[in-house]
Amino acid sequence: MDRKITLAYGDGGELAHKLIQQIFVSAFGNRDASRFDASFLSLKSGEIAVTTDSFVVKPLFFPGGDIGKIAVSGTVNDLAVAGAVPLCLTAGFIIEEGFPLADLRKIVRSLADEAAGAGVEVVAGDTKVVEKGGADGVYINTTGVGLKRSEGAIDPSRIAPGDDILISGPIGDHGIAILAARGELGLMTELQSDCAPLNKMIDAVIEAGCDVKMMRDPTRGGIATTLVEIAEDFHATFELSESRLPVRDAVRGACDILGFDPMYLANEGKVVMVVAHEDTQKALNAMRTFSEGESAAVIGQVTGKGIGQLLLETPLGSKRRLHRLSGMMLPRIC
Amino acid sequence: MDRKITLAYGDGGELAHKLIQQIFVSAFGNRDASRFDASFLSLKSGEIAVTTDSFVVKPLFFPGGDIGKIAVSGTVNDLAVAGAVPLCLTAGFIIEEGFPLADLRKIVRSLADEAAGAGVEVVAGDTKVVEKGGADGVYINTTGVGLKRSEGAIDPSRIAPGDDILISGPIGDHGIAILAARGELGLMTELQSDCAPLNKMIDAVIEAGCDVKMMRDPTRGGIATTLVEIAEDFHATFELSESRLPVRDAVRGACDILGFDPMYLANEGKVVMVVAHEDTQKALNAMRTFSEGESAAVIGQVTGKGIGQLLLETPLGSKRRLHRLSGMMLPRIC
Repeated sequence: MDRKITLAYGDGGELAHKLIQQIFVSAFGNRDASRFDASFLSLKSGEIAVTTDSFVVKPLFFPGGDIGKIAVSGTVNDLAVAGAVPLCLTAGFIIEEGFPLADLRKIVRSLADEAAGAGVEVVAGDTKVVEKGGADGVYINTTGVGLKRSEGAIDPSRIAPGDDILISGPIGDHGIAILAARGELGLMTELQSDCAPLNKMIDAVIEAGCDVKMMRDPTRGGIATTLVEIAEDFHATFELSESRLPVRDAVRGACDILGFDPMYLANEGKVVMVVAHEDTQKALNAMRTFSEGESAAVIGQVTGKGIGQLLLETPLGSKRRLHRLSGMMLPRIC
Repeated sequence: MDRKITLAYGDGGELAHKLIQQIFVSAFGNRDASRFDASFLSLKSGEIAVTTDSFVVKPLFFPGGDIGKIAVSGTVNDLAVAGAVPLCLTAGFIIEEGFPLADLRKIVRSLADEAAGAGVEVVAGDTKVVEKGGADGVYINTTGVGLKRSEGAIDPSRIAPGDDILISGPIGDHGIAILAARGELGLMTELQSDCAPLNKMIDAVIEAGCDVKMMRDPTRGGIATTLVEIAEDFHATFELSESRLPVRDAVRGACDILGFDPMYLANEGKVVMVVAHEDTQKALNAMRTFSEGESAAVIGQVTGKGIGQLLLETPLGSKRRLHRLSGMMLPRIC
């Protein structure tokens, strides 16, 4: 094989066959290339969940992950927070002409490892090649199919005053790690992206019998945008306490310098939950048994129904209303 | 809204919300934007099929279709030829900064119309925006989920000498239509791409009780590459008769001028089948009731088992062996 991808790899001919056979099929443990095209899965009757995400993160490799890892965690987490047990993923690659095969191999390996770690099979894939300048290295789409849980139905319409709002760990790591990796910070940081599949941790919370009324992964737009959306959709007032929000010093420092608010920074390995107050400790305990959830914390409460709004109590005791992220913050964060 | 896509539309904030709500959710008839993120489908027990494809066709609009239409037909056809009844699609868009919203609207509308026509719901979607130069207009990934048919199991290992090889219509239209649309032909043609979802026509063949042993949509690499792959995988000798291959005059003329072979040109609305000889007429009749299959024809036979090869009998009676497409022919054909 060549050392770089040429347009001929996208043609559906001999080279495309080799590319799929040698790089993809072997990494995903599929039997043969034909299997890679469409796969069958047996299901007992039930509801399936389907979700899709394209990944265009820049740079492709960053502290704590790469585009292959984030392509798995992003889609697995979408399924898990929707209340589904991830069953399988598909992976569609758009590759720029000239992209080094060694890098492609690394990315595919990372995607395969991450999927295996999350217990999710990659069942179908596709590669397309575009001319130099037609993409920026590699873009990946992953689409996930999951089985809806029968127990622990997540139903945000049941959100009620008195419920607690929990986060599984410190916010903003991914956003700042990506910025740092782009060299746009002008400062050094040891910070790693938090990108990780959370399905096993979420399983543990549900299986502990916690009454989880809502779960979301606060990615693009950050925890503020995520909670504003839920508050508005379900006409609930959420009040967060700024002093209880876990934020790493490196993230806080970078935000101070750059004028960012960690509440609007993307996370790729965090879940925010609304939990019935009596189950809060149980949920925290379940999350804290996982490294991804060791700093899980209560960050606020549901304080009203009727008006959809997100309020933030500052350390001085005043309250301000938060809105969706508006305008541009960080493009190509995932 | 602006008239062009800016990077801010990819941020997960206010503008991304508007983009999804105003362009995608309305076109796909989904209830609200949150539904667009992950959808649930009820299933009776059975096997589901999953397939994925990214579309990078250039130009985005061409005679007979556009990237939205091909993104539906490509994935629907993959499911249908795998022996599944398409249930739903996801659609992931990667959009270049500066792309006109009017064009995006047209593409999304086309995708939605085509899906509706094929009887397939678009259940989840995603948009990402990359900087100018980071993509070429719009790329679309569609992933399809289908239910495996219980009747009419397609099993290429049952291919046997005496079986007929059928094609649903003239070959090479898509490849030449795309070339012409790029202005690379230096000749005018009225030719339209054949891109179309074939699931209803394929349903009709199966429901007529035909013993279909193999079905494939000969896209990239053309009918030659498709049949070589099947012949090799299942150790069968396929013999095609060149004089029986339906090829439009416009395609033949363009191929003569350009030195292309129609057997290697992409099709986006054709199916090639191996059918038990006694069911051939029934299969042809079923296809011919659809405009997509009105020129369905027998193009060859299975003549042996043991050696996997594709032979072509020329009009003069000599036979030559065909191989997979090797090297570059037409990049970004789908």
